Amino acid sequence: MTKARRLEGQVVASAMREEIKPAVAAFAAAHGRRPGLGIVLVGDDPASHVYVKHKLKAAEEWGFYADCARMPASASLDDVLAAVDRLNHSPIHDGILVQAPLPKALGKDATQRVFDAIAVEKDVDGFAAENVGLLSQNRATLVACTPAGVIEMLVREGVTIAGARAVVLGRSDIVGKPMALLLLHRDATVTVCHSRTKDLAAICREADILVAAIGRPGFVTPEFVKPGATVVDVGINQVTDAQVAASLYPAGHTRLVNFASRGTMLVGDVHPRVEDVAGAMTPVPGGVGPLTITMLMKNTLLAAQNRSAKPVATIPGQ
Amino acid sequence: MTKARRLEGQVVASAMREEIKPAVAAFAAAHGRRPGLGIVLVGDDPASHVYVKHKLKAAEEWGFYADCARMPASASLDDVLAAVDRLNHSPIHDGILVQAPLPKALGKDATQRVFDAIAVEKDVDGFAAENVGLLSQNRATLVACTPAGVIEMLVREGVTIAGARAVVLGRSDIVGKPMALLLLHRDATVTVCHSRTKDLAAICREADILVAAIGRPGFVTPEFVKPGATVVDVGINQVTDAQVAASLYPAGHTRLVNFASRGTMLVGDVHPRVEDVAGAMTPVPGGVGPLTITMLMKNTLLAAQNRSAKPVATIPGQ
Repeated sequence: MTKARRLEGQVVASAMREEIKPAVAAFAAAHGRRPGLGIVLVGDDPASHVYVKHKLKAAEEWGFYADCARMPASASLDDVLAAVDRLNHSPIHDGILVQAPLPKALGKDATQRVFDAIAVEKDVDGFAAENVGLLSQNRATLVACTPAGVIEMLVREGVTIAGARAVVLGRSDIVGKPMALLLLHRDATVTVCHSRTKDLAAICREADILVAAIGRPGFVTPEFVKPGATVVDVGINQVTDAQVAASLYPAGHTRLVNFASRGTMLVGDVHPRVEDVAGAMTPVPGGVGPLTITMLMKNTLLAAQNRSAKPVATIPGQ
Repeated sequence: MTKARRLEGQVVASAMREEIKPAVAAFAAAHGRRPGLGIVLVGDDPASHVYVKHKLKAAEEWGFYADCARMPASASLDDVLAAVDRLNHSPIHDGILVQAPLPKALGKDATQRVFDAIAVEKDVDGFAAENVGLLSQNRATLVACTPAGVIEMLVREGVTIAGARAVVLGRSDIVGKPMALLLLHRDATVTVCHSRTKDLAAICREADILVAAIGRPGFVTPEFVKPGATVVDVGINQVTDAQVAASLYPAGHTRLVNFASRGTMLVGDVHPRVEDVAGAMTPVPGGVGPLTITMLMKNTLLAAQNRSAKPVATIPGQ
């Protein structure tokens, strides 16, 4: 049995880095400062701290300026909004990223209110309503990083999108919906499936390109996949249940051995056995993940270029 | 053979009018002025003049204030933008509508630039990037009128959307994409098809709800339709070719007789013979059309209510 070709995110990310780095250096030379990313991190979520560390490290390596406003879990919503406002008015920050999730104590609407407070032209996550609308109208500059990374991966790996049937499993604002729009604008025939979809496996099986973004470990099993299809796994699920782990890998598999010693592992939404059916497939970890940070860097550069193209007077000081 | 149930737009529109009229009157009583709609009409396109007349008439009948800035075909882009700017700052106009298409002489980007100039809170067509993004994020207030009207029609006619397979034929910013998002948010499994879609008829035949919005007369023939499906026809195509007319109706049909004397007729994207297969179907004319104006009125009322809920200071005078 032929195994699916592995679509390695790191390979695409490295290629993109080599393309973007000279543009970052050129911006710095032209403007006497590096393009800048400001991160806001609130609270003690360990995963968030790891993500932010990776983003800061990447920014440094690529030649960006980056800093992080770390705020205690006790910070008020006004404190967080004030931090965003400072970055909105900062001349050295071109991109702003508020690491999600925010502490629950801030209230139900806090995340939306904070995201909405970010200046549209610095919204390097592509979450602002205006940026989402521009994406829908196929004239976006700042697009949500993960779906934009998936497109880069597909294009650079030579996967044909135009005319393909694409199924997006999941309808989140961060992945599912922008993913569907990006595939549509590249002439795929796109179906969006979700928890209320009937005959889910049968519909997924129609896909030439299947993107899974639902956050359920190993949910997409071989019967969801047309032989030869390209399967993109956006899920990053932390598994701590030994039974779930055992359902994913055959006894004795390296990943189960590691799981036995660590008690945890990261798996995608796609079951590993799908590699026996798919034509190409992104691994988890190491597939889409590296591209998300890559697109964040690309968006920060774009934001810097767009801002510097405007008259200086439009960047208010404070 | 059972014919498809006809989904009459006028019936739904009348029901909605009776619900909205009291709210319009209540607004007028509370604020000492009627909710107001400002239309900008540029040039001599006869169809545009007819549409605007209908909109002004509807506004009057429903209890709105409405006026129209008529500009000659020789108007410059700056003239049109100035007209929009006046309406943006007018305290008596809650909604602004620029009738498309604009004269070609204004240049390729003119329509987009003019639409983008409309204040987001007065954008009763739902075309502004921010309003489109809010729709995508399922928190819209002002939604594009035609797709919003289709949803009203389906809901009021008892068509089940949740769990249904919906296929949207066409991917325009005005109908196709917002239609897909609205159906998705009501838990349909949605596929968007277009000119690059392969096996188009087969994909459409999977639909429980098929929405056609491609602007090709009679394009959707019975083999596109699953028996019993609900078919919504958004197309309004002017046919002047006798051969096309003859392909749509059997010899001696009233519409062909009328066509012979007038030399023109309006037909939808759905072939009339689909009524032998579909379970329910919107006619053209008289289906979706009346709902578009209805939703425009509803959006104008919404815009007025939203504006009046804000502090007066946010409405700048000039």
